[in-house]
Amino acid sequence: MTLEMETSTPNAVLDRVSLVLDAFDGPGRLTLAQIVRRTGLPRSSAHRMLERLVALRWLRRQGRDYELGIRLMELGSIAVHQDRLHEAALPFLHELHRTTGFVVHLAILDGSDVVYLEKIGGTLAAAIPTRVGGRQPAHCTAVGKAILAHSGQVDTREPEAGGPLPQKTRYSISTRSRLETELVKIRTHGIAYEREESLPGIGCVAAPIGDIDEAVAAVSVCGPADRMNFDHRLAAPVRMTALAIWRNLEGGSGRVVPTLQRRHQHLGMRRASVSPISGAPTRVAR
Amino acid sequence: MTLEMETSTPNAVLDRVSLVLDAFDGPGRLTLAQIVRRTGLPRSSAHRMLERLVALRWLRRQGRDYELGIRLMELGSIAVHQDRLHEAALPFLHELHRTTGFVVHLAILDGSDVVYLEKIGGTLAAAIPTRVGGRQPAHCTAVGKAILAHSGQVDTREPEAGGPLPQKTRYSISTRSRLETELVKIRTHGIAYEREESLPGIGCVAAPIGDIDEAVAAVSVCGPADRMNFDHRLAAPVRMTALAIWRNLEGGSGRVVPTLQRRHQHLGMRRASVSPISGAPTRVAR
Repeated sequence: MTLEMETSTPNAVLDRVSLVLDAFDGPGRLTLAQIVRRTGLPRSSAHRMLERLVALRWLRRQGRDYELGIRLMELGSIAVHQDRLHEAALPFLHELHRTTGFVVHLAILDGSDVVYLEKIGGTLAAAIPTRVGGRQPAHCTAVGKAILAHSGQVDTREPEAGGPLPQKTRYSISTRSRLETELVKIRTHGIAYEREESLPGIGCVAAPIGDIDEAVAAVSVCGPADRMNFDHRLAAPVRMTALAIWRNLEGGSGRVVPTLQRRHQHLGMRRASVSPISGAPTRVAR
Repeated sequence: MTLEMETSTPNAVLDRVSLVLDAFDGPGRLTLAQIVRRTGLPRSSAHRMLERLVALRWLRRQGRDYELGIRLMELGSIAVHQDRLHEAALPFLHELHRTTGFVVHLAILDGSDVVYLEKIGGTLAAAIPTRVGGRQPAHCTAVGKAILAHSGQVDTREPEAGGPLPQKTRYSISTRSRLETELVKIRTHGIAYEREESLPGIGCVAAPIGDIDEAVAAVSVCGPADRMNFDHRLAAPVRMTALAIWRNLEGGSGRVVPTLQRRHQHLGMRRASVSPISGAPTRVAR
């Protein structure tokens, strides 16, 4: 019994902390009463936990309101910047922004969403409300479609595979059959386009990073839809960037391909045979 | 006794989680053995906690290595973007970057460090290794000196007030008396300069955001030290940006000044009398 207490209690506390922090995803500032309502935790234990989280600077308190705190900002930043993919990509992302002038994104797949690891842009960046650590439904974005088309898990991606797809705009892909058709096209050309499917007025061009059946991420350029040259002029620099990132990531370790597979297992990607280092990127980004 | 168990255990677990996550600040990937060494936790309970953190996606596991995970990236990003100061500042930061062409930072004080809430820059940004959520010793940066000079807590800032100041470059301010002299000058002019004090070859110009005795943040432009016009040509746009941010922050709430005081109490700032809304920014940024 004592053993059971010891083994179960820390996990229960972790789950409660996670529940409390998740409550802040959306509304921002919350009172104790709101947190109690959102989490279902007893008021007294919620209050004790909140005060401890304030002391640890995971939260901060403004009068009766609680907000996410500075230590989470720091840990989030460390998480991004310790990421090997991010490190391998950064110089090439800056170069792509410099040569195209458009906003550059690096994103990975997480469930049915993409999460942005980097966003680089000049004045244009302000007009595009994406952010590092932010997420979008994968099928609404060029980066998401580029990864889905090259992840070898298209059919089994969603448990409720029959339901309609959520839409971000009236141009978002709304049916699975249209998505399948689109992904086949993307796989054929190695490049994904998005025209106002996630944001009105914005278009993107994306290429997958990784092996042909094992994209680990994608890179894109985004800008005003009417300036995005959907006649493929942006495809070459985006593809070259994806290729350079993948080569740089592989060059950083003698066993990158299997490492990447382990790393992205939580994304639900299937295990592919290990490709020769020289062959893998070429097959992705041709 | 039971009550004591209930009240003490969750806090102890929180402290252990915090200790575990802090261990990743610096080295990046860690094995279980390294985490046990760094935290002093028993191996079995460390292992259980790590696996739970992986399940919650606060960490991710690659073979035998653990890394900070995607949920921390997300929470960190949410923390930054829910921040009222960040929200009030963002359009003006983009405008300052557009008009000057230099890299723009927004930072707050945390203990004796500054923490960056935003960084906006074009090609130049890649040459300056700061990042959102990253920190620097306040006295080595223009933003830090701007806040310190206007925070009304200069004398009591550090517990070990007699010790030498840490240096980032050979130009960093190294003694408290030189810092005091510098802060008096900054308070007089309402603007802070930094010439290669945090990074070789880089210079910055910063202005405090807030009341004259109660800076809550600072904004700066940074670039190559030889292009930073230390003859004060950059002072006006930086000051105007700080003023516009403060006005926007005040405009967003009928009771912003006291709210800000509460919010930044953890930064050790002293409580000042509430200034008239129209008077406060003018006094800061003239």
